[in-house]
Amino acid sequence: MTIRLGPNQYGKSETHMLRVTKGGPFGSVHAIKDITISVALVGDFAGSHLTGDNSNIVPTDTQKNTIFAFAKDEPIGEIEEFALRLGRHFAHDFPAVQRSRVSIEEYPWSRIDVNGQPHPHSFVRTGTEKRLATVTCAGDAEYVVAGLSDLVVLKSTGSEFFGYPRDQYTTLAETHDRVLATAVVARWRYGQPSVDWADAFVATRKQLIETFASKHSLALQQTLYAMGEAALTARPEIAEIRLSMQNKHHYSVDLAPFGMDNQNEIFYASDRPYGLIEGTITRDDDSADAAW
Amino acid sequence: MTIRLGPNQYGKSETHMLRVTKGGPFGSVHAIKDITISVALVGDFAGSHLTGDNSNIVPTDTQKNTIFAFAKDEPIGEIEEFALRLGRHFAHDFPAVQRSRVSIEEYPWSRIDVNGQPHPHSFVRTGTEKRLATVTCAGDAEYVVAGLSDLVVLKSTGSEFFGYPRDQYTTLAETHDRVLATAVVARWRYGQPSVDWADAFVATRKQLIETFASKHSLALQQTLYAMGEAALTARPEIAEIRLSMQNKHHYSVDLAPFGMDNQNEIFYASDRPYGLIEGTITRDDDSADAAW
Amino acid sequence: MTIRLGPNQYGKSETHMLRVTKGGPFGSVHAIKDITISVALVGDFAGSHLTGDNSNIVPTDTQKNTIFAFAKDEPIGEIEEFALRLGRHFAHDFPAVQRSRVSIEEYPWSRIDVNGQPHPHSFVRTGTEKRLATVTCAGDAEYVVAGLSDLVVLKSTGSEFFGYPRDQYTTLAETHDRVLATAVVARWRYGQPSVDWADAFVATRKQLIETFASKHSLALQQTLYAMGEAALTARPEIAEIRLSMQNKHHYSVDLAPFGMDNQNEIFYASDRPYGLIEGTITRDDDSADAAW
Amino acid sequence: MTIRLGPNQYGKSETHMLRVTKGGPFGSVHAIKDITISVALVGDFAGSHLTGDNSNIVPTDTQKNTIFAFAKDEPIGEIEEFALRLGRHFAHDFPAVQRSRVSIEEYPWSRIDVNGQPHPHSFVRTGTEKRLATVTCAGDAEYVVAGLSDLVVLKSTGSEFFGYPRDQYTTLAETHDRVLATAVVARWRYGQPSVDWADAFVATRKQLIETFASKHSLALQQTLYAMGEAALTARPEIAEIRLSMQNKHHYSVDLAPFGMDNQNEIFYASDRPYGLIEGTITRDDDSADAAW
Repeated sequence: MTIRLGPNQYGKSETHMLRVTKGGPFGSVHAIKDITISVALVGDFAGSHLTGDNSNIVPTDTQKNTIFAFAKDEPIGEIEEFALRLGRHFAHDFPAVQRSRVSIEEYPWSRIDVNGQPHPHSFVRTGTEKRLATVTCAGDAEYVVAGLSDLVVLKSTGSEFFGYPRDQYTTLAETHDRVLATAVVARWRYGQPSVDWADAFVATRKQLIETFASKHSLALQQTLYAMGEAALTARPEIAEIRLSMQNKHHYSVDLAPFGMDNQNEIFYASDRPYGLIEGTITRDDDSADAAW
Repeated sequence: MTIRLGPNQYGKSETHMLRVTKGGPFGSVHAIKDITISVALVGDFAGSHLTGDNSNIVPTDTQKNTIFAFAKDEPIGEIEEFALRLGRHFAHDFPAVQRSRVSIEEYPWSRIDVNGQPHPHSFVRTGTEKRLATVTCAGDAEYVVAGLSDLVVLKSTGSEFFGYPRDQYTTLAETHDRVLATAVVARWRYGQPSVDWADAFVATRKQLIETFASKHSLALQQTLYAMGEAALTARPEIAEIRLSMQNKHHYSVDLAPFGMDNQNEIFYASDRPYGLIEGTITRDDDSADAAW
Repeated sequence: MTIRLGPNQYGKSETHMLRVTKGGPFGSVHAIKDITISVALVGDFAGSHLTGDNSNIVPTDTQKNTIFAFAKDEPIGEIEEFALRLGRHFAHDFPAVQRSRVSIEEYPWSRIDVNGQPHPHSFVRTGTEKRLATVTCAGDAEYVVAGLSDLVVLKSTGSEFFGYPRDQYTTLAETHDRVLATAVVARWRYGQPSVDWADAFVATRKQLIETFASKHSLALQQTLYAMGEAALTARPEIAEIRLSMQNKHHYSVDLAPFGMDNQNEIFYASDRPYGLIEGTITRDDDSADAAW
Repeated sequence: MTIRLGPNQYGKSETHMLRVTKGGPFGSVHAIKDITISVALVGDFAGSHLTGDNSNIVPTDTQKNTIFAFAKDEPIGEIEEFALRLGRHFAHDFPAVQRSRVSIEEYPWSRIDVNGQPHPHSFVRTGTEKRLATVTCAGDAEYVVAGLSDLVVLKSTGSEFFGYPRDQYTTLAETHDRVLATAVVARWRYGQPSVDWADAFVATRKQLIETFASKHSLALQQTLYAMGEAALTARPEIAEIRLSMQNKHHYSVDLAPFGMDNQNEIFYASDRPYGLIEGTITRDDDSADAAW
C-alpha cells in the first residue's frame, strides 16, 4: 500500500490587529475595531510536502501583510465583510489555492463616557464574549458562518432534570429545581449571500439570550434546541445553527451538618468535569458541510 | 547557624461559590453573587511544620465549610463585609491564629431583559473585570483593601512618549501620537473603618476610567499617577492606592512597502514583551504595609 | 421550510482521575495512571431536545460514575484499552445510543529516585506532552485513534525557506538558515483491531521526533510529511496519521544598530501570529472519517 | 493631607529570547538557551509620574534591546550570571536608577537522540518545570535568588492528616492514608556572592524532590519544612528558602453505591479549591527582605 499525502491546509493564525478609523471634525472622533484573523488555505501544495518545492506556497508572512494592507485599503466594515474580502483574494488570486477559510474573532469595546459625554478616542473593553465570523471560499461557492463564543448565562431556577434512565452506576437524584449555567458557543450559517451582518448578529444574539432566560428547562438539550429554533424562526437568512453548550455544574452545598437547610441558595461552582451538549438546528436538508 | 522556621501561612484558596438570594413575592425574584474566596492564616503553626502536630491547624476543608455556612447564615452584603465577617472569625475564634487574610474576587453579572422586562432569575455574565476585596485582621487591627483587576482600557490618540535618555542600545523613535492601552489592576486601602463599600467602589472605578480617558498622556507613569490622584481626591476614605498597569504595546504597521501611508490607523497588537508600570499614590506617611 | 434537529451529541467532559495500582510485597509498590476522560454520545436524543423527555438520556453524572467504577473493576491497561471498554459499554448497553466516542488524555509521571533507588510510591510529573486516545464505537464498527499533543521540538539550523511566490504584499526574505520550532499534535488511526498499544505509541513517537531532527527542512510542510511517512513506514498497523504543527516563529534580532553581527544566534520568540500547518498522511483510500 | 507619589517601579516584562551557541567543528554543534527576562527599575522617576518628564526613564524598549545585545556580547552562562550582568548595568549605568531587579525563567530542553546518537542541532522541550533566577542590585548590595516553579510531585501513600481541631464547621475525616500531591514553587537566596550556580541548582532540586518522596508526611506543612531544611543542610551557600506548595486535592471516590470497596485506588483530581501552604526556612536572622 502506497503512502501518500491526504487532505492538508496551512495559513497564518491569530494575527491580532487594531484598526483605528478617524472621523468627525479634523478626524478627532475615533472608532476602533479589535480583531484577530486566522487564514487557512487548501490547494495544490503537494510539492512543498513531498520535495520542499514552495512555488505554490503563499507565505504565511505574506498573508499577515495582506491583512494589514487590506485593512488600510478600504474600511473593514463588519467582520463578515472583511473575511469575504480576504477570502476571495486568497481563493481567487492564487491559482494553486482551491479553498480559503478566513476566521475572525472580534473583541468588544465601548466608548468611555467622561462627565456623561462620550469621549472621542478613549475606550474600555466590555465583556468576555467574542463575535465570530468564518468565511469559506471555494471556486464560486462562498459560505458565511457568523457566531459568538464565551457567552456565559445562568438561571437560578426554572430548570429541572428528571425522567432519565437509571442503571447500576446511577446515583444522581432527580431534581425539579436546579441552577442552569452554561458557556455558549453558537455559530450559524447564512443561507443567502446578502445579509445585514450587524443587524442579523445583534438580533440572533438577542434571541439566544432571551430564549435561554425565558424557556423553562427540562434538559439543557431542550434549552439548546429552543435557542436555535428561536434564532431560525426570527431570522430567515439563517440556514443552520450549531450550538455547543458547556453545562457548568453548580452543586447545592449540604449544610445539614451545620444545622442549616440549604434551599438552593448556596452552590459550589465546579470547574471539571462538565457536561457538554452540542446540537445543530437546521432549516432543511441543505447541510453545507463545506462551510464548517 | 541553626536552621529554623521563618514566616509561614496557609489556607484554602479559590473556593468558588454562587449565592442566590430570593426576594419578591413568593421568593420569585432572585439575585446572585458569584465569588471566589481565598483564606490565608498566620499563627502558631510551628508544631505542624516541625513535628506534624496539627493541633493548631484549622483544616482548609473547615475553612471552605465555614465560607458556605457563613454565606447561608446572614446576607453576604458587599464583598468587603463578607471578608470582614470571615476574617474576624478566623482571627478571633482560634487562639493559635494571629492574623487572617481573606481575599475575594467577584464576577460581574447582569440581569437579562426579556422583551424589555428584567427577568426574575436569568442572568448574563458581563465583562472581564473582577471586583476585589482583601481584608486583614490581626488582633484589634483591621485593614480593608478594595480593588479591581482586568480593566482593559485604550486610547487611540492623546498619548506621547519623548524626552527619554538615549544610550547605545536605544532605537525607539520619539512619538507624539501613539495608542495607549493597558490592563489595570488597582487596589486601594480604606483609611477609616466605616465606608459605603458599594458607593466607594463604583465612584473609584469611575474616577480611574474617566481619568485614563481624559488625561493627555506623556507617559504611562503620568497616567497612572493621575488616575490614583483622582481617586484619592474624590474619595477621602481612601488612604492609599496601588496601581499595576501593563502597557499593552500596539505597534503601527509599516505599510510603505505596499505603497501605503499608515497614519496611525493599522496596529499590530503584541502579546509579549510588555511594559509593566507600578506605583503607589498615598495620602500621607501611614503606609500600613500590614494591609498588603 | 421546517426547522428540525440536526446532528447532536452530549456527554461528560474532562473527568480527571488518578488510578493507583498496588503491587509488590504487601502492596507496597505503587504505580499511577493520571488521565482525563471525555465521553460523547450520539443517538436518539430528539425527545430531550424537543420536549425535555429524558428517557433516553444517560446522565453525564452516570457517565462519570461509570468511569470510576470501570477503573476499579479491572486494570485500566493502556488508555486505548480503557477507552474501548468504556466506549463499548456506552454504545452497546443503551439501546438509544448509536455511537460513543471516548477520548482520554494521559499525563506523564516518572518514579522518583531516592539515593539512586526507585521510590515505591513517589512520583514527579515529567513533561508537557500528553498521550491521547480516541475510540469511536458505532454498532460493530470500532475505530482507535492514538496520538500525542504538546510535543515541542526545535532545530537551530537545518531549515530553509525559499522559492515561494512573491506578490505586492510579500516582504519576507528568503532564508537558507532559520530556526524551526513547532508544537506538534499528532493523531494516528490504527487500521487493525489488535495492536500492542504501548509499543506502537513509543515507536511512533520516536519516529516523529527523530524524523523532525534528522530531516533537512525546506518547508515545515516537508517536515510534517516526512514525519508522517516515517511513522507509517515503521508501523504497518497505522492506517493514517494527521499532524497539526504550529510554526513557532523565532525572529533573528537585528543587532546592527549596536554594531553587532547576529549570525543566527539571538532570536526573539514570538507568541502570535503563528503559522499553522496541517496535513494527513495516509496509506490508501480508506479514510474512515467516522473515526475522527 | 497631601497626596503624593509612593513606591513605584517600571520595566519591560517577559522578553522571550532564544540564544543559540555554536561550537564543535565548523560551529556545527549547537546549544540553546530558552529564557524569558523581566526587568523592574526603582529610582528617581517622580518627574515622569508628576509632569510627564521622561528624562530619567530608560525606555522599556531600550531594556529589551539591551537584553539582546548583552546576550550576543558575551556568553549568557547560567541565568544567575546573565541576570547579574543585566542588573548591574541597569543599576550602575543610569544615575537615576537606585535599584534594578532582573528575573529570568528558563525552559528545559533536551538534545534529541537519533539512532542513539545526540543530534547536533535538534532539541525537544522536556518538562513543565521552570528554573528561576531573580537578581536585585541596589548600590553595592546584590542579592541572588534562585528557584524553580511548576514542579509537580505526588505520593500515593505515606501521607496522613489527623489531630486537627474540630469546630461546628468541621466535617473532614481524619486519615492515615491519603494521596499527597503538590505543585512546588521554591525560591532560595544565596548568602554568599560566589556560587557554582548550576551545581547548586541541581543539588537543591534533588534535595527537594528526594525529601518530598522519602519524608513520611503528617501534614503538608511538615513536608514543606523538611524539604527546605534538607536544602539548607545540604547547601551552605543557601541562606534562606521560601516554598509555596499548592495542595492538589485528590478525593477518594465513594464506590460503595456500586458495591465496590475503594481501597485508596480511585481518586478524583479536583482543580479548585486547593490548599496553599507557604513557608520560609532560614538559617539565621538575616532575612534580607530587599532580595524578594
